[in-house]
Amino acid sequence: MAGLPEPRNPSWAHGDWTVATERKVSYRVTLLERLLDHDNSALMTAAVPPGDPVNRALIVADSTVEARYGAEIRSYFAHHDMPCEMFALPVSEPGKTIERVTAVVDAFDEFRVARGETVVAFGGGVLLDVVGLAASLYRRGTAHVRVPTTLVGLVDAGIGAKTGVNHGDGKSRLGAYHPPREVLLDRTFLRTLDRRHITNGVAEILKMAIVADERLFRLLEEHGPALVEERFQGNTPTSDGAAGEVLARAISGMLTELAGNLWEHQLERIVDYGHSVSPLIEMLALPELLHGEAVAIDMALFAVLSARRGLLAAADRDRILAVLRGLGLPVSHPLLEISVLSRALAETTRHRGGRQRLPIPVKIGAARMFSDVSDDELAVAAKELGSENAG
Amino acid sequence: MAGLPEPRNPSWAHGDWTVATERKVSYRVTLLERLLDHDNSALMTAAVPPGDPVNRALIVADSTVEARYGAEIRSYFAHHDMPCEMFALPVSEPGKTIERVTAVVDAFDEFRVARGETVVAFGGGVLLDVVGLAASLYRRGTAHVRVPTTLVGLVDAGIGAKTGVNHGDGKSRLGAYHPPREVLLDRTFLRTLDRRHITNGVAEILKMAIVADERLFRLLEEHGPALVEERFQGNTPTSDGAAGEVLARAISGMLTELAGNLWEHQLERIVDYGHSVSPLIEMLALPELLHGEAVAIDMALFAVLSARRGLLAAADRDRILAVLRGLGLPVSHPLLEISVLSRALAETTRHRGGRQRLPIPVKIGAARMFSDVSDDELAVAAKELGSENAG
Repeated sequence: MAGLPEPRNPSWAHGDWTVATERKVSYRVTLLERLLDHDNSALMTAAVPPGDPVNRALIVADSTVEARYGAEIRSYFAHHDMPCEMFALPVSEPGKTIERVTAVVDAFDEFRVARGETVVAFGGGVLLDVVGLAASLYRRGTAHVRVPTTLVGLVDAGIGAKTGVNHGDGKSRLGAYHPPREVLLDRTFLRTLDRRHITNGVAEILKMAIVADERLFRLLEEHGPALVEERFQGNTPTSDGAAGEVLARAISGMLTELAGNLWEHQLERIVDYGHSVSPLIEMLALPELLHGEAVAIDMALFAVLSARRGLLAAADRDRILAVLRGLGLPVSHPLLEISVLSRALAETTRHRGGRQRLPIPVKIGAARMFSDVSDDELAVAAKELGSENAG
Repeated sequence: MAGLPEPRNPSWAHGDWTVATERKVSYRVTLLERLLDHDNSALMTAAVPPGDPVNRALIVADSTVEARYGAEIRSYFAHHDMPCEMFALPVSEPGKTIERVTAVVDAFDEFRVARGETVVAFGGGVLLDVVGLAASLYRRGTAHVRVPTTLVGLVDAGIGAKTGVNHGDGKSRLGAYHPPREVLLDRTFLRTLDRRHITNGVAEILKMAIVADERLFRLLEEHGPALVEERFQGNTPTSDGAAGEVLARAISGMLTELAGNLWEHQLERIVDYGHSVSPLIEMLALPELLHGEAVAIDMALFAVLSARRGLLAAADRDRILAVLRGLGLPVSHPLLEISVLSRALAETTRHRGGRQRLPIPVKIGAARMFSDVSDDELAVAAKELGSENAG
């Protein structure tokens, strides 16, 4: 800095300002039926809300959803005399990349999406994550409505503010908190899903049950397999009541958890149960495990670990494992060995600001946070789980 | 929907929740001197704030900045016994792409950036835009500190919340509002800039002057060329006082404008003066025009248009054109012809929610918003400007 002049007018040479402001966010989550019935106006009002600068519905749908429901969606908007432009996007967990986001962005460019227009994302968790991120980036924030068509979308990925894509080994390493303008939940879409994609979603419901809702757990214990079998459509009065209550409880629990912590400034989240070592397991095993399957393995592992610590009664551990198995979810995996577990724990610690912050169930319906789990303790629990599973 | 069962337990079949929350944001902008002096702790405190999960400074610097100041930065942190990792990124306006953002993300992966760690972006407007967006995406939001090293960075790109990259023909089409944790402004960095990059920044200061600060305009009228010549370093008491006051007024004006509208929910922004047709002009002319040069052309065009409408006195129009010319900024361009102007106006209208919302100066120091400008009116003003300029 030699040779620079001294400031000659100190009153102008320094300055100090503070920018302080706040952003209010509010969105509605509605559980309804017959979303595509012509006389149901919910989708119209969400897709083209009052004040929308262009009079049209813009839809980005998962290719599978477009193939199955595209004609119905077009017919719905045609009935309401509303132009509708639709972009079909093939999605898969391995394809949840930033390149897929730019494909959606290119579609937005093609549509010439205006600031203030609303885009509707129609599909499962991956589609919602990718379109949500594209909407977040486009013009630094384009409003979007979410219509989840899978169970994991209905109870988890579709109702919060998170969007994201994988990058490198990092599960959802890139993303944004971009709250939707509105979420419309219609369980009718579940009826065409295969069994595996239903159990994938039940894993996230079970997570909520174990950490926060004992009644929800008992409902899954009693009705879980039937709900999966019937795709939550409720073929009998009993199973219908159970399906409705399970969905409503899972959604309520998740929204309660989200409402106070939408941007996750609070890093201790009991809903991270099942998400402690599973992000890396899921990424390394791609495309073998669905997200909920990786979560199931993680839940089983930490249930066993908790019982070994004497925190969780052996009977409760066994109930958790029994429900997982009864639903056909995996409870162990060859990747559960010490080098992978150690790496997964280190990455989760990095992701939670330098502490493990692991939610560990202490009974059915309650969890506590711990940051003192060693690689060895995890490996021993994994070994117990593996031999139990083999036996 | 034929064949589906009626809901048998209506109380569970429907549900309706509202998620309502708010996010508070606050950050400090400090104008200081001798940032890299060993006994100045400002950069240390910003780079590794109390509570940082990992004890190290992470820097992403523009390659040019790294070449010139890299050793000084390393020596600064070494003096403070703080490990320092630095990534140098080559940047340019044509290279302001999403691919450049993923290069920064890969560097973050390499650093193993933890949640809660702070990244310091050191460079000009493009570097700050790219690193800001990478930080915004990484783990859905990584804290960043901005150290602008160009004039446009000091008075505009560095002090707000905007980040972004170009995509297709779209100037900053993809981005995020990601407020920095802190901004450190040291005009000493300007002394090594070439003249053109200084005038590029003066264009943004002039914008603020014309729409909101008559005294700032008079300072530029009187001292502008000398300030550029001296790179705002203040070689005489008079020019030093002017340099300090010009910077402080420009920053104050910008922050006042930002504070109430950080996420730009309010689309009528007087600081959009100079940014009405210039985004497309700048993109189409790449790499010919610097951002501030495109802004200068746009300001000249709308000053002429305003005078033609009788809103701006001919004398004030001439003062604006004289200051632009006196600084060596362009005031016209061959791309100012009707087909390009028409496309640019249409895109700006899309970007402002379906209305033009054009800030037009009505005297030195004041602007009003208009949404009734036709392509023809623009073309006629451009023609007048072109012939004036040729004459």
